Amino acid sequence: MLADKSCREFIEVLASDEPTPGGGGASALVGAVGTALGNMVGSLTEGKLQYYEVEEDMERLIDRSEELEKEFLELIEEDEKAFQNLMTAYKMPHTSELEKAKRLAVLTAAKSAACQPPLRIMKRCCEAIDLCAEFAEKGNRNALSDAGVGVLFCKAALQGASLNIYINTKTLADEEYAGKLNDEADRMISEYSAKADSVYEKVLSSLR
Amino acid sequence: MLADKSCREFIEVLASDEPTPGGGGASALVGAVGTALGNMVGSLTEGKLQYYEVEEDMERLIDRSEELEKEFLELIEEDEKAFQNLMTAYKMPHTSELEKAKRLAVLTAAKSAACQPPLRIMKRCCEAIDLCAEFAEKGNRNALSDAGVGVLFCKAALQGASLNIYINTKTLADEEYAGKLNDEADRMISEYSAKADSVYEKVLSSLR
Repeated sequence: MLADKSCREFIEVLASDEPTPGGGGASALVGAVGTALGNMVGSLTEGKLQYYEVEEDMERLIDRSEELEKEFLELIEEDEKAFQNLMTAYKMPHTSELEKAKRLAVLTAAKSAACQPPLRIMKRCCEAIDLCAEFAEKGNRNALSDAGVGVLFCKAALQGASLNIYINTKTLADEEYAGKLNDEADRMISEYSAKADSVYEKVLSSLR
Repeated sequence: MLADKSCREFIEVLASDEPTPGGGGASALVGAVGTALGNMVGSLTEGKLQYYEVEEDMERLIDRSEELEKEFLELIEEDEKAFQNLMTAYKMPHTSELEKAKRLAVLTAAKSAACQPPLRIMKRCCEAIDLCAEFAEKGNRNALSDAGVGVLFCKAALQGASLNIYINTKTLADEEYAGKLNDEADRMISEYSAKADSVYEKVLSSLR
């Protein structure tokens, strides 16, 4: 699995002309990094006497962060599979009319399926932004900057995954479905970019 | 080295209460991911007949991207060492007046040294944003979204590293030096956030 490659190897294969990982898989990884930074604030808060009032919150936030980290790492793989299916479809023979029709059907399905992993990455980024916001609000003051960095990375991963939806919906034959996907992506970007910015600004103003 | 851990292990140790890696090291990793996405656009452009006019540009951009990726991975380590030195200084005995004076001297030096890795991360992020901008402008149109995701990640890493400067300069005794570091960080954020935003907007508008 891609998540089991070393960070160095991941960077090398990302930079190469290998078709995967690309922007989608990289967004899933950056989403995991952002979530883990929030989780770290929780780990530095949990069990500390001076934060006993938020102990239950921390347990809940940490549990969910750990699940999200795993989901993000799985999504690196899912995005890879979806993209490989798309590449396979593009390479299908398309000389005869029958071949053309077959290829179009497979390609349409593969293109539409390729939007699903980035859409799931976006949904998890929104949730991770909510978690980072709560870690920043309730967690250990000494690790506040880490919650701020976490929220920045989850926002960038959210925007990054959206570009991988837009590049696919642009050429989808089913314009209604494409429009729905774009609307859903736009809604998440608009709501959660603003939320992430507000957390970042709060962290920044308490550090300066 | 931290860069030789698997992505999964890096996420696990980041999420834990281990003092390192933290927001600084995570910013270096995300900077490497962003740079590698730009580099990938280059790898998908280089040697292609239809892009022969930009062949020399691609070679130059790819060479510099590869250097930057290595530097980012080394900076994960440098940030870890600087933070560990800071932790060691905090733990020095401080009962007698002599101990207090010794600890203060070591702590001051360690705090000031801990600002250097995030400052270097920021400088490399600025350069990586320039590279992504050129990849987006001249590189393979089919990989345009990857240059867009790259620039988003380099900007987030730039902002993330800045938080790790501000959290240190806040308690630096030498206010003049702290002010200079903050000014330098502010200048990079202001100039290169705007540059990154403009590349992202251009990519977005050509995808929508």
